[in-house]
Amino acid sequence: MPSRMILTALTGVPEVTPGDDLVQVVADSINVSGEILINGDILVVAQKIVSKAEGRIVDFDSVKPSQRALVLAEQVDKDPRHVELVLQESNEVVKYRPGVLIVEQKLGLVMANAGIDHSNIQQNEAGERILLLPVDPDASANRLKDGLRKRFDVSVGIVINDSVGRAWRIGTVGLAIGVAGLPAVLDLRGEPDRHGRELLVSEQAVADELASAASLLQGQAAEGLPIVLVRGFSSNAPEQGADALIRSREMDMFR
Amino acid sequence: MPSRMILTALTGVPEVTPGDDLVQVVADSINVSGEILINGDILVVAQKIVSKAEGRIVDFDSVKPSQRALVLAEQVDKDPRHVELVLQESNEVVKYRPGVLIVEQKLGLVMANAGIDHSNIQQNEAGERILLLPVDPDASANRLKDGLRKRFDVSVGIVINDSVGRAWRIGTVGLAIGVAGLPAVLDLRGEPDRHGRELLVSEQAVADELASAASLLQGQAAEGLPIVLVRGFSSNAPEQGADALIRSREMDMFR
Repeated sequence: MPSRMILTALTGVPEVTPGDDLVQVVADSINVSGEILINGDILVVAQKIVSKAEGRIVDFDSVKPSQRALVLAEQVDKDPRHVELVLQESNEVVKYRPGVLIVEQKLGLVMANAGIDHSNIQQNEAGERILLLPVDPDASANRLKDGLRKRFDVSVGIVINDSVGRAWRIGTVGLAIGVAGLPAVLDLRGEPDRHGRELLVSEQAVADELASAASLLQGQAAEGLPIVLVRGFSSNAPEQGADALIRSREMDMFR
Repeated sequence: MPSRMILTALTGVPEVTPGDDLVQVVADSINVSGEILINGDILVVAQKIVSKAEGRIVDFDSVKPSQRALVLAEQVDKDPRHVELVLQESNEVVKYRPGVLIVEQKLGLVMANAGIDHSNIQQNEAGERILLLPVDPDASANRLKDGLRKRFDVSVGIVINDSVGRAWRIGTVGLAIGVAGLPAVLDLRGEPDRHGRELLVSEQAVADELASAASLLQGQAAEGLPIVLVRGFSSNAPEQGADALIRSREMDMFR
């Protein structure tokens, strides 16, 4: 564990559009910000720009709601096209009531609206456009990590983060939906505390904590600072993807 | 929102014992670490040292389990004295099964074992000692803030954090159980995104994000770095305590 950690929000990140090369976007932003990547750095990248680069955009008007979406839309008081997209992106509906639709998104994330985002999407002339989560954010994180290694000969960690609400807490926090080059979870089992007692709390979700830390700089509104460079966090634990953070349904006490 | 944030784990924090003055503990650690507090700094302080300073320690052998604790202890396969303490510290039991006891702690926090901690407590000759959460962590945070203002003529924010598990995620993250001198939650409603659309995600739990960020440096094992100085986070939003993070039972979809 380090004693100092520095987080820097990169400036000059352009508006990302489908097909953009995220390695190039990061490289340009690092350059404009006057930074140099070093081994062990971690880049926290907002889900929005990953989804945009990967073309995970749907024209809202093109969505045809199913019968199931129409019925559920009535119950949750939402646009049936929005509900249709949420259902397409989900394994199951977990809870709903007027104004709220909580699902298990296809990645196993339990969240409102399958993480489908109205904000920060440009309207085109044809109408509204909706952003979906990346299909495989761990793979997206690995591609970015590998691309940066090739380009800069440097080994960095990647966290793709999103702002997600919680069951028993007010407000959203940044969570890790994709991870490469670092351990998503630190297993502390067997490590004694300073009095030699075995620790009861045994796993620390460091990727989520990194996602939350970066979220403090990213802003969610007009600022638009989607890439945060984290320097000073290191761990010798084995690398894992964000799938290590998903609690299996069998271990879930709240469904 | 700032573009850079620096987190520093203070060194030289002594073993805290009941009756210790936390203002003095922080002042000494700041000094040993070669830091100087400036206006707008935030200190994230681990719950453990706040609880210890406030004497929230129970001799385990002195606990007499009630009939209710004896029955529940059988069902969750835990020591009846531990279950008795958990019940004393809780408003209600939320869920349980063998090995797991989730409650609404008296502060409204939904968490395992009411945050009662076996680790990082010294055994004395009489036997095991258990650490409870502070009675009123927002008040504890305010006292520390006021004490530091008197001592250094400086206005800092305080977050008291603890490591807490989540319903649908593996691993613990740092959460804010006490807050003073900053907004626990940022209300983003009405702030447009960069395309002028109103934001749907409207509240950001910045105190929890600060608690998680600091947790990355605190370690949970032998390192023992309970105080983290955060520089570079600022907000003009009104100050709120950590009680602003508690979702009311009526708004809770999972009980």
